Amino acid sequence: MEKLEKYILENGQVINGKILKVDTFLNHQVDPQIMDCIGKEFYHYFKKYPINKIVTIETSGIAPALMCAFQFQVPLVFIKKAIPSTMSEAYSAKVFSFTKNKTYQISVSKEFLNSDDHILFIDDFLANGEAFAGVEKICQEANATIEGVGIVIDKVFQKGHRIIKEKGYDIYSLAMIESLNDNKIVFKK
Amino acid sequence: MEKLEKYILENGQVINGKILKVDTFLNHQVDPQIMDCIGKEFYHYFKKYPINKIVTIETSGIAPALMCAFQFQVPLVFIKKAIPSTMSEAYSAKVFSFTKNKTYQISVSKEFLNSDDHILFIDDFLANGEAFAGVEKICQEANATIEGVGIVIDKVFQKGHRIIKEKGYDIYSLAMIESLNDNKIVFKK
Repeated sequence: MEKLEKYILENGQVINGKILKVDTFLNHQVDPQIMDCIGKEFYHYFKKYPINKIVTIETSGIAPALMCAFQFQVPLVFIKKAIPSTMSEAYSAKVFSFTKNKTYQISVSKEFLNSDDHILFIDDFLANGEAFAGVEKICQEANATIEGVGIVIDKVFQKGHRIIKEKGYDIYSLAMIESLNDNKIVFKK
Repeated sequence: MEKLEKYILENGQVINGKILKVDTFLNHQVDPQIMDCIGKEFYHYFKKYPINKIVTIETSGIAPALMCAFQFQVPLVFIKKAIPSTMSEAYSAKVFSFTKNKTYQISVSKEFLNSDDHILFIDDFLANGEAFAGVEKICQEANATIEGVGIVIDKVFQKGHRIIKEKGYDIYSLAMIESLNDNKIVFKK
């Protein structure tokens, strides 16, 4: 997605050759127009599947996932990083975050995921695929089918993309970053 | 907003005569169509002001606020409940949550709020107005102007609405709940 790559080059900031900060349009400030384009692009690619639910993990996945859900005209379910007091029975998984160097729990109420569900998982970033592994475990427990994986920014120099692909999932990443060496953003051609 | 009230009556669940759970379309599962209607309704009401930024607090405010930002064609800034490692200088405030019975810190990067900003604050719920007080403090520090306050579900039997109004802010609430007594949802007419 050329428009997104242009945005990333103009607004992205690389920290320590590892972290790509896109706070100006995705992770803190959100540009609704680019989110709309992202939602449409995912819809265009994944509309061949019988998707009835978009799933993401709070917080930064919500904006692109909502715009995608709006295109599909299906509900968005955001998996929570804490178990709220009002949540009754839930599916849960542990996820290790390399960026934060800690393990956290993700949970979804059993009410919102079941064996009738054909889901599209949307996330803002993909690195090692730890978050996706947690979502996969939750979907397996719920007997829900993962039809596809849509990633806004994919750090393909880390292992997540390869693992998800090798498992046979249809993964579509809008911006694929090959390297952040010397704090320079290089896209995969 | 009649459509929203109908949604709340059909899908809302009252817990202990105090908490209104709207997990089916707002706080866990999100209905993008109703979010779109909410965004348009806020735009219709607040378009008279020179709003250049929509502000909300993560997490559940993001969906309605994004749809509203899309209508205004301005950025959305979501205030964070934790200080990420990648955030440099920030404006912060402490917020007490009655639902969770704890104090948490909210922060926004100085990069995304300044004296040129005319903001519309959008939130999913209003009860005692603690979250808004935190946002107000942050905006005062940043010298940003709050042009209006848009609330999706306003528990007007608590003090938040009255306080915000008495301070002179233009507050527009889409669903005003007068009582949750006996676990029954009663709207203000």
